[in-house]
Amino acid sequence: MIAEFNPLHHGHVYAMQQARALGHADVVVVAMAGNYVQRGEPAIVDKWARTQAALAAGADVVVELPISATVQSAPQFATGGVQLLAALGVTQLAFGSEDPTVDYAALAAKLATHQVAPTTFTDYTQTYATQLNQAVAQVTGAPLSGPNLLLGLSYAQANLAAGSPLTLLPFGRVGAGHDAPAAGVTASASAVRQAIAAGEPITQWVPAPSAAQLAANRHQTWADFYPWLRYRLLTADLAELRTIAGMSEGLEYRLTQHIAASHDFPDFLRRIKSKRYTYARLRRLCLAVTLNLTNASVAAAQAQPFIHVLGFTAAGQAYLHGVKKTVAWPLVTRVSAAMLAPGGLLAPQQPGEHLIETLTGRSQNYGRVPVRAESGGSSC
Amino acid sequence: MIAEFNPLHHGHVYAMQQARALGHADVVVVAMAGNYVQRGEPAIVDKWARTQAALAAGADVVVELPISATVQSAPQFATGGVQLLAALGVTQLAFGSEDPTVDYAALAAKLATHQVAPTTFTDYTQTYATQLNQAVAQVTGAPLSGPNLLLGLSYAQANLAAGSPLTLLPFGRVGAGHDAPAAGVTASASAVRQAIAAGEPITQWVPAPSAAQLAANRHQTWADFYPWLRYRLLTADLAELRTIAGMSEGLEYRLTQHIAASHDFPDFLRRIKSKRYTYARLRRLCLAVTLNLTNASVAAAQAQPFIHVLGFTAAGQAYLHGVKKTVAWPLVTRVSAAMLAPGGLLAPQQPGEHLIETLTGRSQNYGRVPVRAESGGSSC
Repeated sequence: MIAEFNPLHHGHVYAMQQARALGHADVVVVAMAGNYVQRGEPAIVDKWARTQAALAAGADVVVELPISATVQSAPQFATGGVQLLAALGVTQLAFGSEDPTVDYAALAAKLATHQVAPTTFTDYTQTYATQLNQAVAQVTGAPLSGPNLLLGLSYAQANLAAGSPLTLLPFGRVGAGHDAPAAGVTASASAVRQAIAAGEPITQWVPAPSAAQLAANRHQTWADFYPWLRYRLLTADLAELRTIAGMSEGLEYRLTQHIAASHDFPDFLRRIKSKRYTYARLRRLCLAVTLNLTNASVAAAQAQPFIHVLGFTAAGQAYLHGVKKTVAWPLVTRVSAAMLAPGGLLAPQQPGEHLIETLTGRSQNYGRVPVRAESGGSSC
Repeated sequence: MIAEFNPLHHGHVYAMQQARALGHADVVVVAMAGNYVQRGEPAIVDKWARTQAALAAGADVVVELPISATVQSAPQFATGGVQLLAALGVTQLAFGSEDPTVDYAALAAKLATHQVAPTTFTDYTQTYATQLNQAVAQVTGAPLSGPNLLLGLSYAQANLAAGSPLTLLPFGRVGAGHDAPAAGVTASASAVRQAIAAGEPITQWVPAPSAAQLAANRHQTWADFYPWLRYRLLTADLAELRTIAGMSEGLEYRLTQHIAASHDFPDFLRRIKSKRYTYARLRRLCLAVTLNLTNASVAAAQAQPFIHVLGFTAAGQAYLHGVKKTVAWPLVTRVSAAMLAPGGLLAPQQPGEHLIETLTGRSQNYGRVPVRAESGGSSC
């Protein structure tokens, strides 16, 4: 699976059960976003806390999707996840969908024959999903509906581009839509985050180990990062800002012109919003500025891919032992100082990790070893 | 005069009286450090508050010594002040000294014939003053003593290098040495800052208008800037840090290696201190990092010098009116948006000014006009 677990809720437990069942799988391997997520913000609790929750909820191996893959548009996020799992020898990819009867691989292939590729979508005024769906409607005569359905198609496109290393296993989702308000026994991650922000109880939406991690760990939000973004935009040279990933079309002028008068991050986002850019794209751009995520550091990260193991069960450990001689990328289980030094494997991740360390007081890479949990440890 | 007024105290009032008397001067013109001072920290209150205090204490014209001149070693600071005053048509420079009987111009000339220039001092383990004094002792057979005596020599060297546009007017200082504890009727600026930091009364050390400005305005210290420095060092690329003014000999490694474990700015300074560098040099380097003061921005500022008028009395206004057609550099009395835009006259100053604006909530350049005060307004 490819996931963010931001935070892990009952829907994710169900998803991992589905993955295990549909794949007739010995182990469930999850490529999980690290400390930053695709909508352009820090994960609510750090990657180690979320790994603890994941292992308790049905995952056997959790590996990290690095910042260079997560703070990206949907197709790049999907590509990062597919390549990471394939490098680890995983052969199947399960994902939730509003319509699991769609043949995603076939649809991706059909789109490819019509030259519809992620790179063809250059209209920033609409979300990637909207543009993808318009292309689908043009090619097939009928649009898809639902965000996870389009996410599935992105996975299928990324898988096709990678030479189809993964068999796709879509499964139906229970309960609310991805961004629907909390209802019934499941809620979306964003609804859970909203409940947390509002100080409402969340124990009905998340399994106990996830609730325990949420209670025990510091919560990171844009409120923590806004002072850094503000400082950087007030002092950075325009030429420096032009090196930031996703900074295009003179956006550096827009950002620097509006920062001084802004009161907080939501206010700043409102000021820089235009028809030309979605909020998600602007949030990711602001996060890239704050983390000093440059085109060069993204390129460096992509040139030196690696597999950072965040945690495993006993079954997961056995799986890793079995594949470790054949994995396509370096398998990192204990982060050394050399890996973090300039030019090191994990060096491009460090600016963002240092900020989380400053907030949590907890090392995010150096000296950390994978979380170990009992096999089949779903306590839900 | 060249001054910082950080903060303005009775010794400064006396200095301006001496300057007026010795120079038989119609007006006292002060080149005052803006929002940052030479020891590598923000001025305790902003430049507008200190201009108010200066006009009330005997200054007729206050012009700004920009960051590119103040966050520098002593000889560059002196050069910035001498050139600014000369550009404004000033013909005399008064300064306090432990020994006003020394012929500073002659001493500077003698040092010059022995090839002793500021650039010959490259030993960072000792202060500039110490090295200058060693050279003086070598050339003249007897060392000078006292920091302001060496400051006077720096002025004389800068004046000589500029073609001696200024007649030097040294005068004796009353009361305590520059860094001595408060005693008698005068105290050094650092003693006043220490008293303020300790919550002790300062009204006996500073004239009432300066005390009023200190009471009415936010105080800036390194405690405000340390989180920004920390953020920047945690996220900056080493190549970016190498562009910072004063970053040499691999100091960027030393800074980035020690920041994560540091608790506050004094702790950080202690960690990066070595025999090789003085505290003053390290503070200035840290300030340059925080303000993103690069070699390129210093060069841009020096290539486009200007005279920013911060305030004047009626007599000062008459003086400015008289010289405005002959001043060597652009005379800025009202800062326009164009001057602050990229490439504009004041653009290199803006990162540092934006940070002061964030702290004080008060524009430091845009739309500001000079403070006007009654002529001869010393209310002390």
